[in-house]
Parts: sequence; C-alpha cells; structure tokens
Amino acid sequence: MDIELKKKLAKNWFKILQDMICNEIEKLDGKAKFKSNNWRRNKKKDEGGGEYRILENGKIFEKVGVNFSEVYGKFSEKFKKKIPGTKKDSKFWASGISIVMHMQNPHVPAMHFNTRYIHTSYGWFGGGIDVTPCFDDKKLKNWFHKELKGTCDRHNKKFYKKYKKQCDEYFYLPHRDEMRGIGGIFFDYKKENWEKDFNFIRDVGLTFKKISRDIILDKNKKKWTKKQKEIQYIKRGRYIEFNLLYDRGTKFGLQTGGNTNAILMSLPPIAKWK
Amino acid sequence: MDIELKKKLAKNWFKILQDMICNEIEKLDGKAKFKSNNWRRNKKKDEGGGEYRILENGKIFEKVGVNFSEVYGKFSEKFKKKIPGTKKDSKFWASGISIVMHMQNPHVPAMHFNTRYIHTSYGWFGGGIDVTPCFDDKKLKNWFHKELKGTCDRHNKKFYKKYKKQCDEYFYLPHRDEMRGIGGIFFDYKKENWEKDFNFIRDVGLTFKKISRDIILDKNKKKWTKKQKEIQYIKRGRYIEFNLLYDRGTKFGLQTGGNTNAILMSLPPIAKWK
Repeated sequence: MDIELKKKLAKNWFKILQDMICNEIEKLDGKAKFKSNNWRRNKKKDEGGGEYRILENGKIFEKVGVNFSEVYGKFSEKFKKKIPGTKKDSKFWASGISIVMHMQNPHVPAMHFNTRYIHTSYGWFGGGIDVTPCFDDKKLKNWFHKELKGTCDRHNKKFYKKYKKQCDEYFYLPHRDEMRGIGGIFFDYKKENWEKDFNFIRDVGLTFKKISRDIILDKNKKKWTKKQKEIQYIKRGRYIEFNLLYDRGTKFGLQTGGNTNAILMSLPPIAKWK
Repeated sequence: MDIELKKKLAKNWFKILQDMICNEIEKLDGKAKFKSNNWRRNKKKDEGGGEYRILENGKIFEKVGVNFSEVYGKFSEKFKKKIPGTKKDSKFWASGISIVMHMQNPHVPAMHFNTRYIHTSYGWFGGGIDVTPCFDDKKLKNWFHKELKGTCDRHNKKFYKKYKKQCDEYFYLPHRDEMRGIGGIFFDYKKENWEKDFNFIRDVGLTFKKISRDIILDKNKKKWTKKQKEIQYIKRGRYIEFNLLYDRGTKFGLQTGGNTNAILMSLPPIAKWK
C-alpha cells in the first residue's frame, strides 16, 4: 500500500476516535464539556500540529485530556539516534491519539490509552491501555485483563502475553519499587502486516472506549470518603512522578518541540505528597 | 589538610546547620514540629545514609524538608562517567544539606538552599540559594539579590555575577520557556582553596538562614485570597516539573540508591495543573 495512504488512514482513524471518545465522555458525564485547543508545531513553516481537548470539573471526570496530533519534519541529530529507520534520513512523520482520565470518585481508576503511527524510512504502530486504581481490587483487575486478552486473542493468540509483559515492565517506578497501576497492554515497533496491524490498532481504540465506559458505570456507583480522596491525591503524585521521570511519550514530545500543554494534559488537576 | 579531616569538617558543619535551621524554623512557626527519619543506603554493608526532617501543616510553613546525608561507596560504571575524578577509581564520598520550604501564605516565596561536599579522587563544594515567589515583586527581588551579592562580595568580588548567571541558567524550564523563580546563586565544582571554600560554604548556609527568616517575617504579614492560593498551587506544579524533569540533585539521588522519600521531600504537599 502507498505510504501516503497509510498515513492518511492512520491519522483519520485517530481523528475519528478522538470525536467518538469525546462524545462518549461528555454523554457519560452529563455536565462538563470539552474545550478544544489547536496548536501548530512551527509558526514559520508547516511541520504539523494537533488538537488537544480538555474536560474539567465534571460530575464523573475531574479532568480528561484527549490529544490528537500529526507532526512531521526532521529529528535533531542527537534525538534521531534513539529512533529506528533514521540512519540515512532524519525525516519523520508521526500521528497519534492519547487519552488520560482522572476521576472525581477515587473508586474509579485513572485510565490511560494511546495509539500512534510513526514513519521514518519505514512505519510502525505503537500504543497501549493501562489503568491505575487507588485501591486493591482483584475482581476489577481480573475482569480488565480478561477483556484485554479477548481483544488481543481476536488478532493473535500470542499478543496478550507479550504486550501485558511489556506493560508491566514499562509502568514501573524503580525509585518506589512500585507498579504505576495494575498493568494492561503496551506495544511498540509493530510492523508485521500493515492492514492487520491497523485492524488491531482500531480494535485497541474501541476496546478502550468500551472498557473505560464499563468501569465507570460500575465503579462510579460506589460512595467515597474524604480519606479515600486523600489516598487518590497521593496516588496521583506517583502518576506525576512516572510521567515526568520516565514516560517516553512525554520525553519524545518535549524534545521534538511538541506543545507543552498538550503533552502535560496527562497530569492530574491536583495531587499531593506526604 | 588531610582528606579525612576535610570530610569530617564539611559533614559536621552540614549536620550543625541542619539543627540550627530546624530550630529556627520551629521557633518561627510556633506550631508544627519536625519529624526526623534516619535511613541507611545499604542494609548489608556500610555505605552511609542520612537524616531527613519534615515539618508539615504549620502556621507559616505548609511543608519544610531539611535533608542531611553522608553517603559513600562506588559509582556504577555508567553513572561515574558523569562525575569528575572517577577515571581511575569509581570510589566516592558525598555529604550535604538541602532545604526546601513551601509556605501557607502565597505571598511568601518557596525557598530552596543546598550545599554539599563531594570527594572522588579530589574534592569540591557545590550548592546555592534560590527563591520562587508566586507574584512579581521587584522590591523583593532587588533586596534578595543585594543580600546575596553582599555575602559573595565578602569572599570574592567575582563570585556574585558568575553564580547568579549559573543560577539563572540552571533554574529554567525549557518546555515552558519560564524561569523557576527569581534566581539566586548556584555553584558547583568549587575547589580553589579548601579553607576559603569552606568559609564561603558556611557563609552561604548562614545567609540562607538570615534571608529566609527576613523574607518570612516581612511577607507573611500580608493577607491572601483563595485565588492567590490557587495561583500558588499552579506555580508549585512548575516546581514539580522542574524537579522531576531536570533537577540534577534529584537524578543523582535516585540513580545512586539514595532514599526516595529524602530526595522527593522537595515536592510540595499539594499542587495543581490546569
């Protein structure tokens, strides 16, 4: 398939998914609405940009960021060493969607999803889904992983085990010796068969839409105390530590001239440290 | 002078200063008291450790961390490349004191101070003082820098200009294109004349004690609104971004097996993002 067509299909899917999920979130919340912000990477020449949408102070959602971007240009000499396919040419194109949800009710976990397509001298998909509850909840964890396994198994029986492991390795805070949450799936450099990969990517997006909705409808019924809210604030502190100390997407964004507000939309509205 | 004596003098000064400043802070606050925590770097063999003290929920102070440490051992092969004097031997010894104050009243700036002595195949001092107000305050800035210049000039007429510049370069958030605060002084790899350097280091510590006290007594009289408190929470978000994304001390600590709670005592008790 033509490279430009691949880019167009991937990008348009991410854009559609942004609309679908934002619409779903507003319906679920029933109160707050998204505010949209467009940005351009370079004011002088065309190097792409994006649209990030933030919803705040909802009934269910304390803060949600839904970030779409399509950026292109050349990597710096220093940065390109970290990116495959840039030996002969430092040109790149990247598009993706990322979502982070921080909840009013501490019984509803924070949820994170992202998928992306990157093209240098060749193209690959990456992404994942993971959730971060504030309290131990074996039932939730089992159900969540069963759902992810179901999605993965539809595409390849080997995916779940591999992507779950990568997720556990990635969302880990060495300085705390703690996992960020209860894992999920995480994959990168995915370039087996474009159409199959793209199918999988779309399925991961729709799975996030379904899973996040199911978790919210279930967990948001539960009453919470002030003490539980305090535990959520502390848990969010760990979330911030992970995102600023270790997250590759944050580093990629900040080091390639991405939009700071779009990149840091993942940070919770309020967090505490003891 | 004998190396071991230098280490002992430096370490004991940092320890004394911890007591002096903690005592001063408790007196100023009149309500909250420090809690002390001792930690060891390695439970199996002696590689030093430290004592961090945290005061919370005071009348004046929302959170203060006063961290003393004395650590030694060998740097990892990877890490030692970043540290001078480790070519032939990866052995190191380091001791220091660092203080971060987060205030109840948003008119009183957050204040930060640290001094340290590090010895590999040779030894050097480092450290600095900087403050982070939430609001523009030219009078405060001028006074603060005049005080620092006064201290520097007592030792060497060239220090202030040089160390002020290094401070401005260091406490900068490239992704925000913002300074963290209003600067101060910052120096590293200081090894001109040990006794003169040590004199300077002690003077910097006493200067922080005086300056922080003067600022608190002046600024804490001013009434503040809920809106101003919200601005302080947002400003603290930037403080966290700096400490986790860029701060060398944080990286040094986390990568050399320091105590996570001691290192991250610099984070404010509560912060917000928009």
